[in-house]
Amino acid sequence: MEKKMIEVLDKGYVRLVDKMGNDLTVANAARVSYDKESNEMSSKDERLIKFLASEGHTSPFRHAMLQFEVYAPLMVARQWWKYVVGSDHVMDGWNESSRRYVTEEPTFYVPKDDEWRSAPSNSKQGSGEPIESKEGAYLTKKLLKYIEEGEKLYSEALEMGIAAEQSRLFLPSYGMYVRWYWTSSLQGVAHFLSQRLEHDAQKEIQEYAKVVKILAEEHFPVAIGELLK
Amino acid sequence: MEKKMIEVLDKGYVRLVDKMGNDLTVANAARVSYDKESNEMSSKDERLIKFLASEGHTSPFRHAMLQFEVYAPLMVARQWWKYVVGSDHVMDGWNESSRRYVTEEPTFYVPKDDEWRSAPSNSKQGSGEPIESKEGAYLTKKLLKYIEEGEKLYSEALEMGIAAEQSRLFLPSYGMYVRWYWTSSLQGVAHFLSQRLEHDAQKEIQEYAKVVKILAEEHFPVAIGELLK
Amino acid sequence: MEKKMIEVLDKGYVRLVDKMGNDLTVANAARVSYDKESNEMSSKDERLIKFLASEGHTSPFRHAMLQFEVYAPLMVARQWWKYVVGSDHVMDGWNESSRRYVTEEPTFYVPKDDEWRSAPSNSKQGSGEPIESKEGAYLTKKLLKYIEEGEKLYSEALEMGIAAEQSRLFLPSYGMYVRWYWTSSLQGVAHFLSQRLEHDAQKEIQEYAKVVKILAEEHFPVAIGELLK
Amino acid sequence: MEKKMIEVLDKGYVRLVDKMGNDLTVANAARVSYDKESNEMSSKDERLIKFLASEGHTSPFRHAMLQFEVYAPLMVARQWWKYVVGSDHVMDGWNESSRRYVTEEPTFYVPKDDEWRSAPSNSKQGSGEPIESKEGAYLTKKLLKYIEEGEKLYSEALEMGIAAEQSRLFLPSYGMYVRWYWTSSLQGVAHFLSQRLEHDAQKEIQEYAKVVKILAEEHFPVAIGELLK
Repeated sequence: MEKKMIEVLDKGYVRLVDKMGNDLTVANAARVSYDKESNEMSSKDERLIKFLASEGHTSPFRHAMLQFEVYAPLMVARQWWKYVVGSDHVMDGWNESSRRYVTEEPTFYVPKDDEWRSAPSNSKQGSGEPIESKEGAYLTKKLLKYIEEGEKLYSEALEMGIAAEQSRLFLPSYGMYVRWYWTSSLQGVAHFLSQRLEHDAQKEIQEYAKVVKILAEEHFPVAIGELLK
Repeated sequence: MEKKMIEVLDKGYVRLVDKMGNDLTVANAARVSYDKESNEMSSKDERLIKFLASEGHTSPFRHAMLQFEVYAPLMVARQWWKYVVGSDHVMDGWNESSRRYVTEEPTFYVPKDDEWRSAPSNSKQGSGEPIESKEGAYLTKKLLKYIEEGEKLYSEALEMGIAAEQSRLFLPSYGMYVRWYWTSSLQGVAHFLSQRLEHDAQKEIQEYAKVVKILAEEHFPVAIGELLK
Repeated sequence: MEKKMIEVLDKGYVRLVDKMGNDLTVANAARVSYDKESNEMSSKDERLIKFLASEGHTSPFRHAMLQFEVYAPLMVARQWWKYVVGSDHVMDGWNESSRRYVTEEPTFYVPKDDEWRSAPSNSKQGSGEPIESKEGAYLTKKLLKYIEEGEKLYSEALEMGIAAEQSRLFLPSYGMYVRWYWTSSLQGVAHFLSQRLEHDAQKEIQEYAKVVKILAEEHFPVAIGELLK
Repeated sequence: MEKKMIEVLDKGYVRLVDKMGNDLTVANAARVSYDKESNEMSSKDERLIKFLASEGHTSPFRHAMLQFEVYAPLMVARQWWKYVVGSDHVMDGWNESSRRYVTEEPTFYVPKDDEWRSAPSNSKQGSGEPIESKEGAYLTKKLLKYIEEGEKLYSEALEMGIAAEQSRLFLPSYGMYVRWYWTSSLQGVAHFLSQRLEHDAQKEIQEYAKVVKILAEEHFPVAIGELLK
């Protein structure tokens, strides 16, 4: 299998590492009572998947799996997790890099001049329209400088012999990139998408969700289409 | 992927429907902190898997998946489930045939003359040595007759127009074959094996566990070997 | 806490063994962002629970727990499990009696003369109207006799020294009563109810679901009401 | 139930919000096969719990539950989650405060002069001995200043009308306190303790684990004792 990768934000990406099954996997799992396995997708299989998705019969969607590698700011990782822990336990695997080790240079997400967003007028959460580029430029500069200072202090602490797990207190970590593998059933992926593609999800995680959708759809066009209806 | 199938008991089988990953998947998941992905298995990868298994670092084993089709007596299905529900939630998918529908003729597990086992002398549970073949022959004959009678009554009830979900009360169902798909992470499969290969597991499920082990080992020789040490 | 028990079917029951929390638990879990804990239920809390349920924000419903003891025919136990394994992993505990031991006399569910149901005219699954009492009487008598014969064979096998785990092949086990503890979050209970109270669920499990609802509502009237809307 | 709270680190705490069951709950769940419920703890119950724990029969420990409120630095929250997601799915509930809202002033963990720890000499991970107080005083001062600057920039961004979810990029968030409810089975709590009380766990989370142990032991002295052997 070719391992397709798509870039997200300024330095992030999502890569499909592996997958198991295809749309037929779902239809065949639903038909186990009948001992009839299809070997080629037919319009009958499509109708069955449509029926399962619309009726909320989710178990057949748990036999198809996807494994992703994700590189994203920590604040995105946290929202991804929150979804997992707080709703269905549909995720199998999560292995993530850790700053308790000193393994690579810290890397940070920095919005560009025209990517800073205003607070929404009618909600306590989420974002409104982008602010003016000039003001954005001011914030981007300030953030770059603040990160630089944090990195300097972090390095200084390490050089003084302080443990990495404590030195990292100096890092402005919400925007720090972390890398992880995520293995989930097709149902889990669709559930993640149904929540994180929504307009009130944080813009940054929406970007990741869009890419996950593209990668999943390539292998499960019918199932993803029906589950997201 | 060739879908290998192995027969179990008098009429059952296990078939490997699909799998995701290989031993390297485990090693690469463990190395996500270091951003180093191997493309070919080396002795270093083997040592890493050995280390993860012996230290109980189980999460990397959750990125490799296996999907099985199983055809087994209901009493085996129930023990398989009990393991799943009562210990770790490592299973993703379970889709099983149901006798609420009339889809195929009921089929039953019947021990052969020399397959009836005595109660163990020193335990409330499990089996001891096989009993004599002559006595076994008597029980096999009785069981065949009792099943035949149950099937006749079941058919009679269906013909009288009784719902299948109620007619099945006439079936001696512990030995009735059911068919299901089971999708589990490599960790889940190893955990199942560690419990069901044990000498105090019911003989019939031990037979299934042995076959699951053969099918899993073919694709994950290092990981299965280390997890079962 | 008084341990309330309600009878179901001819010999079964559901008992609420323990519970943790009340409707306020849900509201307080949802408000953790605001660091405001209510000590007494108000109309504001009620509105919040209504909002959470209608928007599908299910995580706050996972901090309240219920533990039940259930005594039901094996076919009901299997449907209960299937729901658990095949959908959300919301169940924590399941401990069930086993016929691998000889611990108590087998007990069986036997529909009364007027409780046998016809096959539905427009579905492959479920039940239609009850059949005539006279025909039902015939089936009840046949079932009682078939069970009696199975019990006799089961006892004979045990007396011949056969292991209990194999002797049980003689039992018409779909109707055999089993006993288990089920511990689930409030979300898990509501999900079970939403599926098993439906008219197309098997009549026997509907009876159990009705009783679970009564027991759960007593302690979580608002949450159960809103989740089942 | 009195809601006992114990302070941890400079500004954190753990509070036992609620619990379900006691040591007897475990013994009774294990005895469901025998239909014998104890009402008072005896030495026989103690021996049974000891046996279950030593043999790895974990399912009876899933019927007792504990709900905690935790206030801890984000880096501790992340390790707590990682344990949950990466091992057993034994956790039911997790509801956490979010900085996508502006709800309370950010609060930060700042090690005191004598609480900065050196890197361990023989491991890539963890901490060694504390460094000298004079050097620690330098780092504490630097960290306080860096946090102050971050807070100022965060406020400035908010005042410019930037969405909270983006303004928070200015916060050195590893040390920022977050608050959450955690509901877990007794098995889940013991598994967390068995990993986070270890000397190679990060010092800060060890402090939390010690307090969780004290709170859990008060209600489940036998079970916690045996599970942690």
